[in-house]
Order: sequence, then structure tokens, then C-alpha cells
Amino acid sequence: MSRPGPDFTLEGMRELLLRGGTPWRHPGPADVLVRDGTITAIAPRLTEPGAEVIDIAGRLVLPGLVEAHCHLDKTLYGREWEPHSAGDALADRITNERTRRGGLGLPDPDNAAALLERMVAYGTSHVRTHTDVYAGAGLDGVEAVQEAARRLDGRVTVEQVAFPQSGILRNPGTAELLAEALKSGVSTIGGIDPAGMDRDPVRHLDVVFGLAERFGAGIDIHLHDGGALGAFELELIIERTRATGLTGRVTVSHAYALGQIDAAHQDRLAAGLAEAGITVTTAAVFDFPVPPLKRLRAAGVTIACGHDDIRDLWSPYGSGDMLERAMHVAYRSAFRRDEDIEIALDAATHGGARALGLPAYGLAEGSPADLVVVTADTPAAAVVTRPPRDLVLKAGRVVARDGEPVR
Amino acid sequence: MSRPGPDFTLEGMRELLLRGGTPWRHPGPADVLVRDGTITAIAPRLTEPGAEVIDIAGRLVLPGLVEAHCHLDKTLYGREWEPHSAGDALADRITNERTRRGGLGLPDPDNAAALLERMVAYGTSHVRTHTDVYAGAGLDGVEAVQEAARRLDGRVTVEQVAFPQSGILRNPGTAELLAEALKSGVSTIGGIDPAGMDRDPVRHLDVVFGLAERFGAGIDIHLHDGGALGAFELELIIERTRATGLTGRVTVSHAYALGQIDAAHQDRLAAGLAEAGITVTTAAVFDFPVPPLKRLRAAGVTIACGHDDIRDLWSPYGSGDMLERAMHVAYRSAFRRDEDIEIALDAATHGGARALGLPAYGLAEGSPADLVVVTADTPAAAVVTRPPRDLVLKAGRVVARDGEPVR
Repeated sequence: MSRPGPDFTLEGMRELLLRGGTPWRHPGPADVLVRDGTITAIAPRLTEPGAEVIDIAGRLVLPGLVEAHCHLDKTLYGREWEPHSAGDALADRITNERTRRGGLGLPDPDNAAALLERMVAYGTSHVRTHTDVYAGAGLDGVEAVQEAARRLDGRVTVEQVAFPQSGILRNPGTAELLAEALKSGVSTIGGIDPAGMDRDPVRHLDVVFGLAERFGAGIDIHLHDGGALGAFELELIIERTRATGLTGRVTVSHAYALGQIDAAHQDRLAAGLAEAGITVTTAAVFDFPVPPLKRLRAAGVTIACGHDDIRDLWSPYGSGDMLERAMHVAYRSAFRRDEDIEIALDAATHGGARALGLPAYGLAEGSPADLVVVTADTPAAAVVTRPPRDLVLKAGRVVARDGEPVR
Repeated sequence: MSRPGPDFTLEGMRELLLRGGTPWRHPGPADVLVRDGTITAIAPRLTEPGAEVIDIAGRLVLPGLVEAHCHLDKTLYGREWEPHSAGDALADRITNERTRRGGLGLPDPDNAAALLERMVAYGTSHVRTHTDVYAGAGLDGVEAVQEAARRLDGRVTVEQVAFPQSGILRNPGTAELLAEALKSGVSTIGGIDPAGMDRDPVRHLDVVFGLAERFGAGIDIHLHDGGALGAFELELIIERTRATGLTGRVTVSHAYALGQIDAAHQDRLAAGLAEAGITVTTAAVFDFPVPPLKRLRAAGVTIACGHDDIRDLWSPYGSGDMLERAMHVAYRSAFRRDEDIEIALDAATHGGARALGLPAYGLAEGSPADLVVVTADTPAAAVVTRPPRDLVLKAGRVVARDGEPVR
């Protein structure tokens, strides 16, 4: 790839012409012209005197990757290896986090910023992160993540979800803190296992949907509850979404139950999710069930994906690379054909963008110039091989090259 | 890492001193002295005048990785991306392979050699590969893999299994060809789903164990049959192993059934497998069940691992990196603690070595100097982060550096 000379910085560029790459879902090679942070033209053999030209002949161009579910406030990313210290049960991990969080200095803006910078190097342009909000800590997490995002200085966009990790009803003061977070500018309200965690699915949803309506917030509910129980909660969420007019603003993350019920039941729920405009976000972590993505997609359900935990007290795994995460999603779904693997890539791009409500996202004229250039024969090959990102643009600015962030 | 100058080649070295690394399972940093392809000393602060010194201070030293289950004869590795062309069902993949194999020029020694070279760069020193043997193709596959292995010139050791991919009983002439392969020097006989594929588990095992006894061969049976059926076949294999005196020479690959039966049944089978010295090799591919590794290990069963298919007509996935494969095994097993993740690393090293019957394998005085140096805080961190291999030795020879093969 040709590079500007050392005394020239792309940061100051107003016009950039990416020459000869193949934008995903375009019929063939096409140049991409970027002006003032926006894609102004995609067509073969563009000319634009004065534009800086970057030769990307033979490379693949993807829209900026979208991390739709992570926990920046929990990460230890960038520290020395921290061996996992909890027992095998979920309760062990919850207790362990409560016990160790303070001693480890969490939430830590340094770690969150280090992870965000790595995400940028991997081509991620938008992140939705779930920030713990619980009585005792106030809005420390929200502020730490805001601080980390500030340090990235626009190289990645960060959306926070005020997330009641330990439940709402069982922890007095949490509902008030969630309201506080939304008042302070957090745009999305989280929920977690209305039945399994909070023991009262209807009252839990009362609080979550009530806050969403009051503050005009979106919703993202972590639903690990399995089988018939989780399926029932999905029904409640569908009904509530329709009743409150929050169509298109609700996400259910994980939704393991969708992978555990029979096909007819899956189809019924898929139709309901599609009608209510509810996104399903999957992380395909560990051995947990993955929702039936092809079936959901056929019904018109938006699918997004994310890492969930990355190097934190819940999981020592995770790289921040959304092509790798798409690989896990495709792999666990037994997707082999290119067209199927692209379902996972779509979740890591367009699906995530819909979940986050990003306007004008994509490789199209008029879209923000958030894009990634990789060396791969096909989009599916990019997911399988996850090569270093040759070039990453965020709002038209070069934010990474050859796998490393550009500051 | 210090490097020899450009006019100096380590290939000719008789003595090599790796200085300051931390060998896995050693109490702390220790130097490793290599002479004539063998580890002659592991201890802190060794001196050896005349030995070439390589500074690996702060790095981790692992024994050479062992790929215990792959299919070199099927791989398209090194070619342009070949989109997967089969339907979703197993029968589709079998038919698709039969139809397309010839047109793609498989088996191809170039592809097999390209993959082996990549495996060397990833630190693999021993490979067990299952080579299709079927009427009509003769021993083409065996010869292609032999040719590929020859080209690697000792940089990796390759063991072939004569593998009846499409069954034995249902394909007349296959048993004779398997015998032919064993006569020509192939050391291990394969089997596949004695019930599900060949429709007669006892007669299938008659052939496989009969050939093993006749030629003094080891056995590696691919058992995808699930639930009670697969468990029954495991019982048959255990009984047959005991009866034939092949204790310690039999492997069952995949063994999905072990992940599908209840815990008490798992324990009974684990005890039987341990007593018969039967290795369980897992690949943790796609969404297939992974055997209960901690339970098997607690019972004393040897566990090995491998990729299964790598970039072939069965699967477009796979890199050849055994640290990545160990990650998949650990991840699907929900191993989070270092000690648990090391169970997967053990499968990719010592367990594989036991399955392959490698004498004196390991990081010990008197062992062949097959080893890998990586930058990782702990062995578990090496599995999770899979950094480029800093240095790879095979029989004392430097075969890879900084992630690239050395020829």
C-alpha cells in the first residue's frame, strides 16, 4: 500500500481517494472518495484532483465494524495476565467480582482506553458497552468509560448502556441510579434475567420499560435464562415493546433460550421479534447456546454481535477483534458457505449499526467514512483468516494502519 | 531476542543455549542446553563455552506442539480462497467431496506441504494426519502426504493413519487397500462410525482390530455417532482393546457421545477408556459436543487434540495453529482458570505425544529438542493470546523465528 511521506499527515486531509479496492456488496472494484468525513462517491475510476490517493488495489473494503455488546468498565486489558480467580459457577463469578473489583482498581479508564485503542486497530468504529450501575458505586463506571472514550478523541464512537449487573428489584437504590445515569446522558437502559436474577419478570420489565419511556432511552436486556423460561420472557419483552411503542429500540442480548427451544417455537418467537423490531445480539461465548441465526434472519430479525467480556474477572478471553468474534458466531452456527459466513459479518457491521441506531451507516454515498481495508479474497475469507487491518478510517480520518493504531 | 548475524546459520549449530526463558512446569527461569538435537540440560545459569547463545529472557518455553488429528491430503491450504460448495447436511459434504476432489487436483502435495510449513511456523513438531484410502484412488493420498512430508525435510514429523472416510464394509476393496497401506509403512489404521457409517459395528471393528493385530499397527477411530449409540460403540472399542492386547495403542477421535450422556455414564466410560489406555482426541469444531475433559482427565484418560479439517472441502476454517486449536478446546469447555486452560494445552502437547507414542517427549534432559518460545505471561495466556512464535526448534534445529518458517 502506498503511504504518504513522513512530513505529511492524513489527519489534516480533507479529501481522500481509496483507489482500486472492492467494497463489500459492490459488483466489483470501485474507488471510494471521502470528503470531510463522509463518503461522497463510490465508483470505478474516480478522479479528484487534490485528493490524497491511497492505493488499495485488490483489497477488500468493509464498513467500520460494530461491537454491539461489551463491558469496557470491567476490562483489565493492557495489564499483565490476570489469572481467572473464580470458581466454575455463575454465583462464584458474581461473588468474585464483588470481592476483587475494588482491589484491582476497577473501573479503570486506562484499561478501557487501551482496549478501545486495540478495537480501533481492529477496525471497530462503534461500540456499545454495558456499564455496571449499582448502589454503592454511584456512576463511577459511567464516568470511567466516558473518560476512556474522551481519550480516544473521536477515533471510535462509544455508546453506554446503564446495566444493572446484579439485578434491579433485589438491590434497592439501583432503579434510582439507573435513572440518574439516563439523566446524565446515558442513552440506553439495560436489564438482566428478569426471572432468573430478579425473580419477578413483570416488575423488572416495569422498571426497565418505565425508565426507557421516561427518558426516551433504548433498551438492551441480557437474557441468559434458558428454555421455556427464557422463551416466556422473550414473549413478555415482545408484548411490552409493542405496547410501549418502543418498536425498533429494544435489543435482547444472548437470548440463549432461542437456541434451546424447538423449531416451531423458534419461528413463532422470530416472527414476534421481527414485528417488534427487536434486535438479537449474540456473542457465541464458551459453550452457551447460539440463537438460530438463519432462522431469525429469514424472519426479518436484526442480528448484532459482540464480545461480551474481554479480559476481565468474568472471562480471561477476548481480543477486541470483531472479525474474530464474527468467526466465533459463524463457527458455532456451523456456517461454512460464504453466504452464510457473511451473516455473521453482517451482524458485526450492519446489524450492529441497526441495533445502535446509527444513521446512514454503510459503504454508500453520504455515509460517514467509517471503513476497514483488509487483504482477503472474499468477505467470508476475512472472517475466517482475520488478517491485520491494512487501513482503518473513522469519519474519514486514518485511525489505524497495518494493524496498529495511528494517533 | 538476539539473533545470529547474517553470515551465520543456526542450522549448522551443534550446541545451542537458550538463555533465561521459563520452561513450562519448571519452577522458574532456566536455561536450556541443546546438543545434537537433544536437550542435554535444563537449569538456571548454565554455561557452555562454544554454544551459540540465544537470549529468550522473560519468554515462555513450551514443548513442540502436537497436531493429533488433521487431514493433510484434503487441504487446499495456500490456494486462493475456495468458497465452501456443499449443502448443510453430512451427506452433502460427502457427495460434494467425491464430485469435486478430482477437479481440484486433490490430494495435492503442494497444499499439504504449504500447510505443514505453516504448522512449523506455529511451533508444531509432530502431526498425525488421516489419509483417505478408498477403492479407486489406491494409495494416492498416502503417497502425496509422504511427498509433502519429504519436502519439509525433517522440520516436522508426520504420522499417517490409513483412513476409510467412506466406510469399510460398504465399500468393497477398502479393507484390502487399508492392508496395502499398512504394508507400505503406514503405522496406524483408522475407522469411522462403525454403526452410523458402516451399519455393522462388530464387523467394522473386526476389520480394524484385525488389521491392527496383523500389522502391529495402532488404531484411531473417528466416532461421530452420538448419544447411546456412540456410547455403546465406545464400550465395544474398550472391550475389543482389552481383548486384543492393544492397550495404549488405540485412539477414539471426536467421541461426541461422551458429551451427550449423563455424568454417571461418562464416569463409567472414562474408567473403561483409562483402563484400556485409549486416548480421546477432540477438535472442538463447530457446534459439535466436546467430551467432558476434566472428568476424563480425572479418570486418567489421555486427551489429545487437533484441527480436523483445515481449509478443505469439509470446512473452510482452520489455521494450523495448535495454540488456537487449544483455545477452541478450552473455550468450548468453558475453562477460565489457568490450571483448566492448561488441560487444553496439555492435550496439544503431552497428550498428543502419548497418543502418537512419541518416546521421551517433553522439556526434559534427554528429550528431543522440539520446543517453542513464545512471549506470554503464563501458559494459559499463550493459549488465549496466541502470539507469534518467537522461536521454534525441531530436533535442535531452528525451523521458525518470529512467526515465519526458517528454511
